[in-house]
Amino acid sequence: MSLVVGSIAFDTIKNIHGKRERIVGGSSTYYAYAASLFENPKVVGVVGEDFPEEIIGEMGDRGIDTKGIETEKGKTFFWEGEYSDDFSERTSLKTELNVFEHFNPKIPDDYKEEKIVFLANIAPELQQKVIEQTGKDRYFIMDTMNLWINISREKLMETIKSVNGIIINDEEAKMLTGEHYLFEAAKQIKSLGPEFVLIKKGEHGSMLYFEDKFFVLPPYPKEVVIDPTGAGDSYAGGFVGFLNNEDKINALSLKKGMVYGTIVSSFTIEDFGIERLRKLKREDVENRLKEYKEMINF
Amino acid sequence: MSLVVGSIAFDTIKNIHGKRERIVGGSSTYYAYAASLFENPKVVGVVGEDFPEEIIGEMGDRGIDTKGIETEKGKTFFWEGEYSDDFSERTSLKTELNVFEHFNPKIPDDYKEEKIVFLANIAPELQQKVIEQTGKDRYFIMDTMNLWINISREKLMETIKSVNGIIINDEEAKMLTGEHYLFEAAKQIKSLGPEFVLIKKGEHGSMLYFEDKFFVLPPYPKEVVIDPTGAGDSYAGGFVGFLNNEDKINALSLKKGMVYGTIVSSFTIEDFGIERLRKLKREDVENRLKEYKEMINF
Repeated sequence: MSLVVGSIAFDTIKNIHGKRERIVGGSSTYYAYAASLFENPKVVGVVGEDFPEEIIGEMGDRGIDTKGIETEKGKTFFWEGEYSDDFSERTSLKTELNVFEHFNPKIPDDYKEEKIVFLANIAPELQQKVIEQTGKDRYFIMDTMNLWINISREKLMETIKSVNGIIINDEEAKMLTGEHYLFEAAKQIKSLGPEFVLIKKGEHGSMLYFEDKFFVLPPYPKEVVIDPTGAGDSYAGGFVGFLNNEDKINALSLKKGMVYGTIVSSFTIEDFGIERLRKLKREDVENRLKEYKEMINF
Repeated sequence: MSLVVGSIAFDTIKNIHGKRERIVGGSSTYYAYAASLFENPKVVGVVGEDFPEEIIGEMGDRGIDTKGIETEKGKTFFWEGEYSDDFSERTSLKTELNVFEHFNPKIPDDYKEEKIVFLANIAPELQQKVIEQTGKDRYFIMDTMNLWINISREKLMETIKSVNGIIINDEEAKMLTGEHYLFEAAKQIKSLGPEFVLIKKGEHGSMLYFEDKFFVLPPYPKEVVIDPTGAGDSYAGGFVGFLNNEDKINALSLKKGMVYGTIVSSFTIEDFGIERLRKLKREDVENRLKEYKEMINF
């Protein structure tokens, strides 16, 4: 199974399709809902007393192991953001760390032997702490965000050095390397340590650099985007969730994982927050995969 | 066979890899070199007395029919441009129309029954004249450019209305429709008349809208771009050249055409101007296609 360490949050999201207040979000949440289509992911995170037990219960019903989610006194991490009408820009209006401010991931003993550990976009110091606790034999895949590239670059470089793979979006890859050209950025990031670099390009699909080869995948064509929040985290969940069931992590399984990430995230953006993921079944994913495969084959 | 009407030019190109002065270029030229890998395209265009006979001869050797290229008194169309170091921007430094200023395409009688007519990025009025001369039974595919969208929008709309397909780049599609979102832009352009809309997205691949379905294709991964000039025109040449040999123009043949366009243009950008295309063989294209197919399959 996979283990994820990241944020669990309330989000207020405003975009051209409307506004949703204090809906459930967070990188771990999206990851876990997506990965649970393939396996039983284990979540380590922290919520406040205001977090709905209903959601924790629902996660459990989906086969997500929530034992690692601690409830602390206080409020759950809160983020408020607004998208430009064409979704090309996102402005953070409020970020209240609340109980997340002192989050210090403690990995339960029976979470330490998981096959893949996904380090979501938490501070690189915390990512390091997870690596220390689970031991170096795990297969580590990390994400990050612009904040850490800006304020914690040195620590981030150390984390990148110690992971097996990194999933990062195009803007972050450019910011991290100072390279405009994504192929070059991918090569540079790989030279820092990981055996694969996966770059998410939003509406342009995704790209893998592994064993000195590039693999470029188109998006599943979605004409209407209702809310792109969590698309990247659910891509990671689909990708890692699928990979967890594979015997070998090699070019073929990484490619297939990317396809599943692509498909799962194409559902995420069909509704606000986790709404679409809550109703999503493996069968829906397989049906859309068939369609995608037909599109891609020639 | 296909018929192309467009520019034949001298280009001076400056970019991060160097500068080339007065090398052979032009939309028809790139198109014809690319299409000649598949068929014997016929070219209608105009050059000045300064245009090298060697190139006209070389075109002939490649099976390109150059009878429709007129030599007029004066100089060949000249363009000078400079690319930003990351190739994200291109600045026109000089445009001297020369003999192209009074170009009035005259289609030789034995060019009027070609299966596909490709209207390269010339003025919409001239595109109309070609349609009038060849009659409406041809399969018309057009390109255009920002200039005509800006200064000749109305005429352009008329041309779009009368063609079967349009190949356009992402920026032009957005400019033409005022839509940021490419899927929406493609739909809007199709609603103007053509049965297919093909959007070229440069480093992000290409996208087709046909029969209410989208088909998205990744690029062939090229780590180093030497010169992107002519990439779009040679994509069109590979696409149409392939399509010319197909019995039916349907979703499958259009998709395959896109794959050939993708592969041919991935060679174009390996050297300045038409240098790489001059040496390119169908065999090279088929070999890279195999590699691409392996990359895309999962």
